[in-house]
Amino acid sequence: MSFDIHAASAPVFVNSLKNMRAWLDKAAAEKPEAELLEARLAPDMRPLPAQYQMASDSAKNAVARLCGIEAPAMADNEVSFAELRERCDKTIAFIESIAPDAFAGSETREVKLLFPNGAGYRFAGRDYLTGFALPNFFFHATTAYAILRAAGVSLGKPDFLQHLGPPNINPED
Amino acid sequence: MSFDIHAASAPVFVNSLKNMRAWLDKAAAEKPEAELLEARLAPDMRPLPAQYQMASDSAKNAVARLCGIEAPAMADNEVSFAELRERCDKTIAFIESIAPDAFAGSETREVKLLFPNGAGYRFAGRDYLTGFALPNFFFHATTAYAILRAAGVSLGKPDFLQHLGPPNINPED
Repeated sequence: MSFDIHAASAPVFVNSLKNMRAWLDKAAAEKPEAELLEARLAPDMRPLPAQYQMASDSAKNAVARLCGIEAPAMADNEVSFAELRERCDKTIAFIESIAPDAFAGSETREVKLLFPNGAGYRFAGRDYLTGFALPNFFFHATTAYAILRAAGVSLGKPDFLQHLGPPNINPED
Repeated sequence: MSFDIHAASAPVFVNSLKNMRAWLDKAAAEKPEAELLEARLAPDMRPLPAQYQMASDSAKNAVARLCGIEAPAMADNEVSFAELRERCDKTIAFIESIAPDAFAGSETREVKLLFPNGAGYRFAGRDYLTGFALPNFFFHATTAYAILRAAGVSLGKPDFLQHLGPPNINPED
């Protein structure tokens, strides 16, 4: 199997959404949920739930636009960790429901990204993925992590890269 | 040109390193440099210069490992914005010095990532890029951004995605 746009998108989003889901468990064990749900990095930045919602949007819209299908609408009304976990799960389930074959031709598929004011960007699929979707997704995933870290949750880089699993090279090898 | 591992790596790193360089100019115009050089998100997280250094390392090591060449050593001794700009520039120059052809075969090239204790990961190049190099790079780029935002610098999403340039769809289209 050669490098393809499915491998560079769907599992990347799914891996990080699973990591993000797990951060909530660690956070809930260490700090009051109500405090973390209000936490943000700067007064004019969005709080934790919005970072989860925007990571979800970035991931589901990316695979949908690449495949030329509709992403399921999600209402951005999560107000608890349980609901944020469910948001991660629904997003993962949608992405995993799309067969790798559905990405055929997505490298060159025209993707339009429109803002509410009518301006936006027209991309080839591959440029949309590497220039917008991946950076924007990791922006929100990392901002969620940063909010939790700044609030005192004991996350570390292994939590950000939890999808790697345990090392497959050991010192005695 | 089809989607390839060069397009999914080298220009992605270069674009974000140029954005990161530009954040320093905005930051320097708004806040004392000495204060920002010490800024961090949590007491046990690394400060701003280390985030730039680790983003640089992640990018230069990624392209070097994919191509099976050596990345230039950089001493992690930057103590000013001028030196961080130079670090970005040197990293960008190294990445841009590698011809796209040098990425031939990198999808399946074995990449070993070893930690100081001798443990580590063995990947195929494509899995290294999508599972480690890109998430880790954007982790440090976003953490640098988050440190500046939390310190009161007026960055916004357009600064994170500055490489997109102005919209190419306009409301009157």
